Amino acid sequence: MSDRDRIARLRLARSDSIGAITYSRLIQRFGTAEAALAALPDLAARAGGKPLRIASKADAERELAAVTKSGGQLLFRGLAPYPRLLDEADGAPPVLIVQGRLALFERPAVALVGARNASAAAVRFARKLGLELAEAGILVISGLARGIDAAAHQGALDHATAAVVAGGIDIFYPPENQERQKALCECGLVLAEMPPGTEPRARHFPYRNRIIAGMSSGTIVVEAAPRSGSLITARLAAEAGREVMAVPGSPLDPRAQGCNQLIRDGATLVQNAADVVEAIRPFASQVRSPPSSFEAAPEHLNGDEPIGLVEELLGPSPVPIDEIIRLSGAPSGAVQLALLELDLAGRLERHAGGKVSLRPA
Amino acid sequence: MSDRDRIARLRLARSDSIGAITYSRLIQRFGTAEAALAALPDLAARAGGKPLRIASKADAERELAAVTKSGGQLLFRGLAPYPRLLDEADGAPPVLIVQGRLALFERPAVALVGARNASAAAVRFARKLGLELAEAGILVISGLARGIDAAAHQGALDHATAAVVAGGIDIFYPPENQERQKALCECGLVLAEMPPGTEPRARHFPYRNRIIAGMSSGTIVVEAAPRSGSLITARLAAEAGREVMAVPGSPLDPRAQGCNQLIRDGATLVQNAADVVEAIRPFASQVRSPPSSFEAAPEHLNGDEPIGLVEELLGPSPVPIDEIIRLSGAPSGAVQLALLELDLAGRLERHAGGKVSLRPA
Repeated sequence: MSDRDRIARLRLARSDSIGAITYSRLIQRFGTAEAALAALPDLAARAGGKPLRIASKADAERELAAVTKSGGQLLFRGLAPYPRLLDEADGAPPVLIVQGRLALFERPAVALVGARNASAAAVRFARKLGLELAEAGILVISGLARGIDAAAHQGALDHATAAVVAGGIDIFYPPENQERQKALCECGLVLAEMPPGTEPRARHFPYRNRIIAGMSSGTIVVEAAPRSGSLITARLAAEAGREVMAVPGSPLDPRAQGCNQLIRDGATLVQNAADVVEAIRPFASQVRSPPSSFEAAPEHLNGDEPIGLVEELLGPSPVPIDEIIRLSGAPSGAVQLALLELDLAGRLERHAGGKVSLRPA
Repeated sequence: MSDRDRIARLRLARSDSIGAITYSRLIQRFGTAEAALAALPDLAARAGGKPLRIASKADAERELAAVTKSGGQLLFRGLAPYPRLLDEADGAPPVLIVQGRLALFERPAVALVGARNASAAAVRFARKLGLELAEAGILVISGLARGIDAAAHQGALDHATAAVVAGGIDIFYPPENQERQKALCECGLVLAEMPPGTEPRARHFPYRNRIIAGMSSGTIVVEAAPRSGSLITARLAAEAGREVMAVPGSPLDPRAQGCNQLIRDGATLVQNAADVVEAIRPFASQVRSPPSSFEAAPEHLNGDEPIGLVEELLGPSPVPIDEIIRLSGAPSGAVQLALLELDLAGRLERHAGGKVSLRPA
């Protein structure tokens, strides 16, 4: 991959209104990131949006330099060595920054997450489970938070563990993590979606959780409070069709409530590494398709993209894209392009299950 | 019900080779217990068995007197107030001896069982759950053993609880149970399958467990060792199509292993009375058929019961009765009677799923 392509992809990913889907659709449509970048202003204008802020070449070069200086590298969705399971997940980030042993991506991966203020027993359990999973050849993924996350990494450190951080890859959060994060860069992996230098904010954590769930064949939760981030990660794993596992506890222990409820809701009860290996076997044994390639030839459509028609068919209620295609009578590619234009103009909202709606003006 | 019928039914139930199925089939075939008793010697002889030991009238009268003296009464399968759910279960005992408030049988019933050497926390939990279930209008059934059983009864005592004992209703086992068992006879129910005076033996406990599971819409297990009686009760509940529930615990606690494994095997994880009420709702709301009546007119068959033919079709491997009927070409009632005769002669073995085999000579 050329630096030129790398810079173009990074600019595209860092431009306004370019989410996971738009990024992929644009490269699919125009064949290269560079061609997509060139077409962006026109596309946005056609759907009547405000002019789009496109990331500058200088900014992208600065980011690439910072990533390289930190010892990391950029991974782009659709291109190896971007993690394959994550590539298959909805809403996977267009770009990831990674440091460490990329060969670990080849292993089956399991997320091990839980409460920051976990009990001493649960922390000990998470450390042991992390170790046993890693010894079994599994990449143990977590979020480098206090409590269960830290214990999971610590247990698996000598074998295979990956941390996904909410801020930039060069930011240590919480601060006491500095040493552990550096150790992970040496022995394991650290991943970030945000550019270097980004301080983690509350809004970054759900993205971080989505990456953890998306990279993993399954997510194990150890001690989670009701409505906690760990339960969100579990929900994201379930939505991605991955295995959800939980470690039970006594009903007399309030910290066990989240996990017990997960099990009541259908999560697999796990007590040890063998239970986990059994649960993820269907994922691990399945032959995975290589990352979907966006390198296909650009789509050739005639100039009559039915943007007005598609706009008319849309409203504030989410409808399946398939239905828009059917109702419009236009070719699928043309409808997708019209949706892309509306998206770039900030006028489209994408929902779960491939549904879209028009954003109120 | 006349004392004469009561004595006849009791003699039938206490005679050799008369199990749950044979008892019912005999009354169905002959219309009354008295008629069945009269026919027994001939029936047994026709299949070439040893002469049958039939319980004497004097013995039955002595048992009835002992039951009455202890303040109890006899319940016969197929006749109210025999517990309805138990009546629907395979292998329910022909006769039960009961003391206490029979009106409690009208309530939805749940079994709450577990380890004798349970942790203090689990004992406290069982007591609280027993209380909450009983307060919710549920009859809490258990086995009056030490540990979880005793706690379940104790919690539910002021509202609704039933103990099924392995020995006679007038035997206190373990001895420290004397006071609790007496209290249960006052405020709740005590049930026994064995005649008064029977000291409980190891072989009696599986029968006791079958009654506990059979009486209940569901069975809850709190702390059970692998291969313990509580897990057998849970398996019997599952086989009877009833709900199996388990209270989880930390994988670090060896006493939680049995319950956690039950949950992994499909039992519903329960943490409180609300979870239990939700789980058994399908049973509790279902309109139950009245007890199947064995008071129907006797079946009239011609004299040519195909006993030789049925015997020929049978072997040491269990086969479905339906298949014997089909292969014999004989009327279903005739085949059933032939099977009954083989049973009385001690030559038939009955297996799960309505299968039968011939006992090796």
